[in-house]
Amino acid sequence: MGRWEPGARERLQRAALELYVERGFEQTTVAEITNRAGLTERTFFRHFADKREVLFSGQDELLESCVNTIVGAPEATAPLDAVAEALQAISARFEERREFSRQRQTVIAANAGLQERELLKLAALASATADALRRRGVTEPTASLAAEAGVAVFKIAFERWIGEPGGRTLADVIQDSLDHLKAATAG
Amino acid sequence: MGRWEPGARERLQRAALELYVERGFEQTTVAEITNRAGLTERTFFRHFADKREVLFSGQDELLESCVNTIVGAPEATAPLDAVAEALQAISARFEERREFSRQRQTVIAANAGLQERELLKLAALASATADALRRRGVTEPTASLAAEAGVAVFKIAFERWIGEPGGRTLADVIQDSLDHLKAATAG
Repeated sequence: MGRWEPGARERLQRAALELYVERGFEQTTVAEITNRAGLTERTFFRHFADKREVLFSGQDELLESCVNTIVGAPEATAPLDAVAEALQAISARFEERREFSRQRQTVIAANAGLQERELLKLAALASATADALRRRGVTEPTASLAAEAGVAVFKIAFERWIGEPGGRTLADVIQDSLDHLKAATAG
Repeated sequence: MGRWEPGARERLQRAALELYVERGFEQTTVAEITNRAGLTERTFFRHFADKREVLFSGQDELLESCVNTIVGAPEATAPLDAVAEALQAISARFEERREFSRQRQTVIAANAGLQERELLKLAALASATADALRRRGVTEPTASLAAEAGVAVFKIAFERWIGEPGGRTLADVIQDSLDHLKAATAG
């Protein structure tokens, strides 16, 4: 099975993102990615099913982490606040990889197929979030509405955070966006 | 160019939806649709670019109508209320075609490619809505948040309306969903 390459996953992701930004996602081959990373294709396919998965791997774990936070939140926590807490809890993973996140956003924005996949992932996050809220006893339509609103807050906060030159953390921007949504719905 | 067939568009849509529900979207051909409708392929392609467009045609007009309602709403109307008004204004077009809407939802739910297209259309609606709010002087991130929240309300209200056996109008379910969202964000 070949030897274990330390940091191989991160090297492959970095090389792939660089190439997607430089040449476009469609034009980049797995061979080019492994060349730039100085690794074999065999190593690539041990980490990723295909070149698209470089952009979307790890999302199932994030989704699971969100669900666990929501289900385990104190009983008194309001539905939308439980969702916001869960999204803030996962934001640390993006914080460490701001440049990767920025490049990833650029690549996805330039490709309709990747955009559709991203939207499908966000829809799956909203659906799992609504399910977690129902497990807390939240009834419909509040569970689905709080889930969709929470994911919308995350999506917009993420874009703002990516676009801001340094400064606030993603968790802060999520909180600020949530406050703006609350003000807009109270208005 | 062949003669004009009265009601051809609706006959083609009805025949297509029946076949998509019976056999699946992928398995249905344009020839089968025109056979069932008793019309020619030439007539089909005068109305629709392909068999997918039967499901998505008319959406650009809905989006334009939403934008116009938002831009033209009284100055004192709060952002989210302007969005809700626009969505209620277009709901009449679905009201007349409840069974078509229900079948359409079933077909889309069964096909990942169609789901992705539906999500992309909703994302375009949110983006156009945010733009319309900015033209009213609403600042960011409130414009984007109110737009995303409004589209989320519409999406969930639509699913509830489709699933309810008669009774309330779509406009009523939109208002009720909006009230639930307001209660959830205030909570």
